[in-house]
Amino acid sequence: MTAAYDVAAIGNAIVDVIAPCSAQFLTEHTLERGAMMLVDEAESAALYGAMAPGLETSGGSAGNTVAGVASLGGRAAYIGKVADDQLGEVFTHDMRAIGAHFDVPPLVGGPATARSLINVLPDGERTMCTFLGASVELTAADVDQEVVEGAAIVYLEGYLFDPSEARKAFAKAAGLARASDRLIAITLSDSFVVERHREALMEFIEGQVDLVFANAAEITSLFRVDDFDQAVALLRERAPMAAVTRSEQGSVVYSGAQTAIVPAYPVQKVVDTTGAGDQYAAGFMFGLARGLPLEVCGRLGSLAASEVISHYGPRPQVWLKDLAAAEGLI
Amino acid sequence: MTAAYDVAAIGNAIVDVIAPCSAQFLTEHTLERGAMMLVDEAESAALYGAMAPGLETSGGSAGNTVAGVASLGGRAAYIGKVADDQLGEVFTHDMRAIGAHFDVPPLVGGPATARSLINVLPDGERTMCTFLGASVELTAADVDQEVVEGAAIVYLEGYLFDPSEARKAFAKAAGLARASDRLIAITLSDSFVVERHREALMEFIEGQVDLVFANAAEITSLFRVDDFDQAVALLRERAPMAAVTRSEQGSVVYSGAQTAIVPAYPVQKVVDTTGAGDQYAAGFMFGLARGLPLEVCGRLGSLAASEVISHYGPRPQVWLKDLAAAEGLI
Repeated sequence: MTAAYDVAAIGNAIVDVIAPCSAQFLTEHTLERGAMMLVDEAESAALYGAMAPGLETSGGSAGNTVAGVASLGGRAAYIGKVADDQLGEVFTHDMRAIGAHFDVPPLVGGPATARSLINVLPDGERTMCTFLGASVELTAADVDQEVVEGAAIVYLEGYLFDPSEARKAFAKAAGLARASDRLIAITLSDSFVVERHREALMEFIEGQVDLVFANAAEITSLFRVDDFDQAVALLRERAPMAAVTRSEQGSVVYSGAQTAIVPAYPVQKVVDTTGAGDQYAAGFMFGLARGLPLEVCGRLGSLAASEVISHYGPRPQVWLKDLAAAEGLI
Repeated sequence: MTAAYDVAAIGNAIVDVIAPCSAQFLTEHTLERGAMMLVDEAESAALYGAMAPGLETSGGSAGNTVAGVASLGGRAAYIGKVADDQLGEVFTHDMRAIGAHFDVPPLVGGPATARSLINVLPDGERTMCTFLGASVELTAADVDQEVVEGAAIVYLEGYLFDPSEARKAFAKAAGLARASDRLIAITLSDSFVVERHREALMEFIEGQVDLVFANAAEITSLFRVDDFDQAVALLRERAPMAAVTRSEQGSVVYSGAQTAIVPAYPVQKVVDTTGAGDQYAAGFMFGLARGLPLEVCGRLGSLAASEVISHYGPRPQVWLKDLAAAEGLI
């Protein structure tokens, strides 16, 4: 069956609040550098009060990936839950404005649209404190069967293992995708997510996943090993395809017996690493959905990541399809 | 009397929605390139629906200037009206987080926080469509006497000539400032504002203003002449001090008989000109309040403007005091 979408993604629908910070700020607020922590509404408000002036922009890992796929000229759909408020309106606008399909009804009368407070160090590394708000009200009923069955790749956030209702949505999407012979992809999202849900993630990967995205910290945490190559080898026994990123060292991608070592694209100055993994996944999956060679998929991922880390914000600020064409990748 | 604030500014409190656009987009939506147009809520919603994905950030001309003064290490206060909603919360946070004084109570039960839809062309020029929302509910009662009397310079937006209640706030602030021997500064804001309120602006300048900020389009519109130097000469007959900017050609500043021709700071790439005039005013007034020579005031303005046009968003993304120190200006 021809796919209506290159990628359909399910995730926590989040608006990002991005501000610069110092290392001292992280220490003072006992924030783990580079991590994603969950906070409740009161903690979110207190931390926001202490943060520097910021920029607000639509975020959410899978949402960023959908925006990246659309920016590459791909057809993309998003499933996630915002509230019926101003930030929800911003999220919805941005998703539709990039050309992505998004029609999950907003939550009325519940918590506010999720927000992630992102503190960015001078070297570009980001630390996120996320108040999940309305996003955790995503239920299996919000997973549109037609969207999932119509996507070449169904992409799921590891972050969805945190809220229990969302895991049901996750399971429904995976089941529908499997029944329709669609590829199922997952990102491990964060090494603390892996810590919290190692067994469940491992079981899901072994049982259902075709394609795994991870970074070095996540994959070594998953297998509780120190060595990157050893972790990749262990993943290889469990998943038929994967792309494992390692910041400025690029990525290692494999599909069956095939492997490619993909360099990172050089960046003049790393401003904000938020969205780097999300955009990598966007580039890789766009290439995969369009039948491009494995290495080109990896290069598309690297290119998309290089654009997003060169400015504040987790989504592309130029059309990635123009960048990719200029690089001769599409 | 020693001043508690270097600058107290009164303006329309606005959140900016910034997105890239094409020249064709402006034509299709009959938007005047480079201008600021007022739109109602329905027009704002319709235009937002057509815009590209964007960034949200606190804006408003005088608000941006206050943020710039604070970023230079100055003491600044802001008077403007937001609503009791998420975007109002963002505006309030950003003002306080930069260290500025802001305690005007938010509007409850009225229109939403003002938003300006800013479409940015590839060359960085911005076109703004502003829904004034809650900002026009600013009244004279919101003008805190202690704040105005405690500021070395009281800075007023020409944009405030649009809402009639705000003009009363404007008049109150000017009266209090005059009674306390404070400097009164005004920015002409926009050539269309000058068209709409030429007589009232001229009368206000001649009768009450010590310092005028304008760009080339505004000042030639004010005097209905084509020649920049002629317009500056005409302004000189009416206001004791002024700073008139002309984009990449820098600015002409005078104070009494003294004149300085100030170059612009070079910028690697102009990304978004939003806030250029606002930051120029911030730099100039910070220098003036600290008793720096006229030319240094102009250079501080140029430096602050050069930072803000090098990224999306109308407020500094680095501490301007560090930049100014590196340039040997402070």
